[in-house]
Amino acid sequence: MLNPYEQRMKYRDNTESGTTSGVCDGYLQTNMITLPSEYAFEFLLFCQRNPKACPLVEVLEAGQVTPRVADADIRRDLPKYRVYKDGKLVDEPLDLMEYWQDDFVTFLLGCSFTFERALNEAGIGLLHQQMNKVVPMYQTSIPCESAGRFQGNMVVSMRALKKHEIAEAEKITAEYPLAHGAPVHIGNPEEIWIEDLHNPDYGEYTPFDEDERVPVFWPCGVTPQYVGLNVKPRIMITHAPGHMLITDRPE
Amino acid sequence: MLNPYEQRMKYRDNTESGTTSGVCDGYLQTNMITLPSEYAFEFLLFCQRNPKACPLVEVLEAGQVTPRVADADIRRDLPKYRVYKDGKLVDEPLDLMEYWQDDFVTFLLGCSFTFERALNEAGIGLLHQQMNKVVPMYQTSIPCESAGRFQGNMVVSMRALKKHEIAEAEKITAEYPLAHGAPVHIGNPEEIWIEDLHNPDYGEYTPFDEDERVPVFWPCGVTPQYVGLNVKPRIMITHAPGHMLITDRPE
Repeated sequence: MLNPYEQRMKYRDNTESGTTSGVCDGYLQTNMITLPSEYAFEFLLFCQRNPKACPLVEVLEAGQVTPRVADADIRRDLPKYRVYKDGKLVDEPLDLMEYWQDDFVTFLLGCSFTFERALNEAGIGLLHQQMNKVVPMYQTSIPCESAGRFQGNMVVSMRALKKHEIAEAEKITAEYPLAHGAPVHIGNPEEIWIEDLHNPDYGEYTPFDEDERVPVFWPCGVTPQYVGLNVKPRIMITHAPGHMLITDRPE
Repeated sequence: MLNPYEQRMKYRDNTESGTTSGVCDGYLQTNMITLPSEYAFEFLLFCQRNPKACPLVEVLEAGQVTPRVADADIRRDLPKYRVYKDGKLVDEPLDLMEYWQDDFVTFLLGCSFTFERALNEAGIGLLHQQMNKVVPMYQTSIPCESAGRFQGNMVVSMRALKKHEIAEAEKITAEYPLAHGAPVHIGNPEEIWIEDLHNPDYGEYTPFDEDERVPVFWPCGVTPQYVGLNVKPRIMITHAPGHMLITDRPE
């Protein structure tokens, strides 16, 4: 197994560009959201007010490209990115060199991939990993606390667990506040206004036996992206869903 | 005893303007720092990076004057304020009506007064309360994490305790992260470059018997003010030391 630095170099030179789920197990992974500095205060406040959906790992000040949590260049060392202009997706590049500006502020947020290994180690298998799919994610009716222009509802990720696994999964994931913590909802998706589990808003559906398994929902790091886009910033850059920054920090 | 709202009305109409130490016991008190919005991101980041010195209770967005933690007008309901222009103290008014601008962002930070009652209830008497003085505060050599233009060393408050009280005080105050938490230093002030306890940088010296008592130092909410002034903002407004916002929230 490669260490995080070696793995990031594969992303840097584009020899790999796939999902980071299950890669470099044991190391903290983060979401990335980059915004022009004019949005930075409101967005930082949004994270501070919504710590479950937006667990802050690190903030890179205007123009900074190297974090503390990884000996990395955030413009190149994630496998894939998304670039939005005026709220619309315009590109899904492998690096950001043509887009980077000196006034960009970057927020690294925790990610639920970080607790997946802990679940695996407790004997809880995860269908999306077994099927090699990006975990399914859904918009909901759960409101976030607003901050300035940033407002909207929480996006959640879903993992369908066997009934006897649920209590253990709640306990384990509650130990990972930087990875969103404990589930925000268990069972009936309609209660949080998810109409159709088969059609996730992000990621890919994982079929499951409804007699055997129950859908369990965690706050998801796509939330700040989704909320950010409501603002229609002139430019916003994020990791592509499922394609995180792998840091040098152990979980 | 007046409730917080009634007490704040005395500050609003200027019938009282003294220190809030020991006033409305049982209710959370906060520091207040107001800055033009151009500094807000860096200052919020400074608080997030220095949670012991700057425990964030609430952030009021640009122009907001009423917090959630108190049914108050922050421009009038503290007993006394300090106004700084270009880093220099220019006024110590009883209200801010002549200074207020729509782009002001206000940060309410926790304050060590909040744990003083808990110490009293544990039988730990505090000399500054007995002498009716503002607690002494000192600049130190303990560096803060910088954020943008905001950088500098921690300011601490000092309470001289009897030797047998120290362990209990550490335990009690550690339960109050919003009031700076546990002490940051105990005993010999020179180790943190405090040269002369008799000459605090803020507040008032409380004489004590050095055979009986040991100086104990906590992070202090003057820190962000002190650090803020290094930046020489065109205007910065704070509570006057010892003259806090008394909120409606129980401790």
